[in-house]
Amino acid sequence: MKKELSIVLVSGGMDSCVSAAMAEKRGPLAFMHSNYGQRTEARELKSFKALARHYRVKKTLVADMRYLKDIGASALTNKAIKMPKGRLKRSDVPSTYVPFRNAQLLSAAISWAEAIGAKNVYIGAVEEDFSGYPDCRQAFFKAFEKAARTGTRPGTKIRIITPLIGITKEEIVKTGIKLKAPLHLTWSCYKDSRLACGECDSCLLRLKGFEGSGMKDPVPYKRRKGK
Amino acid sequence: MKKELSIVLVSGGMDSCVSAAMAEKRGPLAFMHSNYGQRTEARELKSFKALARHYRVKKTLVADMRYLKDIGASALTNKAIKMPKGRLKRSDVPSTYVPFRNAQLLSAAISWAEAIGAKNVYIGAVEEDFSGYPDCRQAFFKAFEKAARTGTRPGTKIRIITPLIGITKEEIVKTGIKLKAPLHLTWSCYKDSRLACGECDSCLLRLKGFEGSGMKDPVPYKRRKGK
Repeated sequence: MKKELSIVLVSGGMDSCVSAAMAEKRGPLAFMHSNYGQRTEARELKSFKALARHYRVKKTLVADMRYLKDIGASALTNKAIKMPKGRLKRSDVPSTYVPFRNAQLLSAAISWAEAIGAKNVYIGAVEEDFSGYPDCRQAFFKAFEKAARTGTRPGTKIRIITPLIGITKEEIVKTGIKLKAPLHLTWSCYKDSRLACGECDSCLLRLKGFEGSGMKDPVPYKRRKGK
Repeated sequence: MKKELSIVLVSGGMDSCVSAAMAEKRGPLAFMHSNYGQRTEARELKSFKALARHYRVKKTLVADMRYLKDIGASALTNKAIKMPKGRLKRSDVPSTYVPFRNAQLLSAAISWAEAIGAKNVYIGAVEEDFSGYPDCRQAFFKAFEKAARTGTRPGTKIRIITPLIGITKEEIVKTGIKLKAPLHLTWSCYKDSRLACGECDSCLLRLKGFEGSGMKDPVPYKRRKGK
C-alpha cells in the first residue's frame, strides 16, 4: 500500500488511541485535538500530548472550539446539566450529546488535511455503543465525506475513515493490545480528571470492554462495579 | 408564513447584511460571527456588532475559530501569502480561499440552531462571483444540509438557506436598498481596516455592484478605480 499522510482525531480516549494504532500502518500521522469546554478538558489534553509523544507525531493541531461551551445544551459542557450515572438507554439521545460536535471536529480536520495534503481523516466513533449520538452514525460520516468532496479544491479527495464503527468495546480492547496501543496513557471518563469515576456511561463501556477481553484496565478508578 | 427563528451567519460584509434583511421577513433572528484570524478581524467584528444592534438581535454568538489561522494556507489568514490585487480569474481557486472555512461556520451554526431550536441557517454566499471558492457552491450547501440532517437529533430539520446564491452583486445592492439594509455599516475589504483598499477582489466586486445599481457605496475607500 502506498504510504499516505493521515490525520487522526485524538480525544485522548481509548477509541482514538486504537484508531491511531490502526492508522499508523498506512503511513505518517498528524494528530488533531479539540478543547471545547468539556468537563475533563485538561485531562484529555494531557492524554493527547502523551499519545502524540508515544507515536512520535510531528504535526499536531489543538483547535480551540470553546464556543461549543457557549452553545451548551450538553451535560459534557454545561455543569448545570446533571451527568447521568450508569449505562444509558441506546434508543434515546443522551444528555451528554454535544449538538453536532463531530461536524466541527471533521470540518477542522478536513480543512487541515486540505492545507497539509493529508489523504485520510481517522475518527474513532463506535456506532453500536453510541447509537444514541446522531453524529456517531456511519450515515452521518458518509454524508459528511460527500460534503467535504464538494466543498474542497477540485481533486481533493479526503477519506473519512471510521475503523471502529462496527465493532464492540471488547474488540477495541483486543485490537489495541494486539497493536501495542498505549492504553495506559488514555482517558475515557466523562466526569473526573484524577481517578476515572467508574460510573458514567463512558467508564462503564470501557470497563465492559476490558472485562470481555479478560484484561485489566491500566487506568485508575475511583470505583468499579461490584468492588 | 409561520414565524420561525433563523440564524444568520454575519461576517459584517454586504452580502451577509442583505441576507439578514431577507431573513428578517421569516421571523426573529439570531446572528453568528466568527473570528478566525482573518486580516480584518477587528473591523469585521465591529460591523457585526453594529448590524446586530441595527436589527435588535437578542441572541448573538461570536465563535473563536482562530485555529484556522494556525492551519493557514490562505492569504486571508497568513500575511506571508500576498494578497492578490485586481479581479481574480473565476476558474482558479484564489489564494484568499480559506480551506473548507464555510464548513466550520455551518457546523457551528447548525450546532447552535439545534441547541436553541432555530429552523434556518442563512449564509450569504454568491456562487457566480465566488465560483472559485469550492465551499461557496450550491452543491456544497446541499450536501452539507444533508449531512446536518443525518448528524443531528431525529426530527431536527434545519434548512441551510442561501438567498443570494444565484444573483449578481448589482442585484444584491438593489435588494439591500429596497429592504433598507444598513449597507453603510458593512465592511467587505479583505485587506485594510480603516479605508477599504478599493483594489482587492472583494472591493472590486462590491464597487461593481454599486456601479451597476447606479448607487454610491457609502463606505470610505482609499482608492477607487479610475479616480
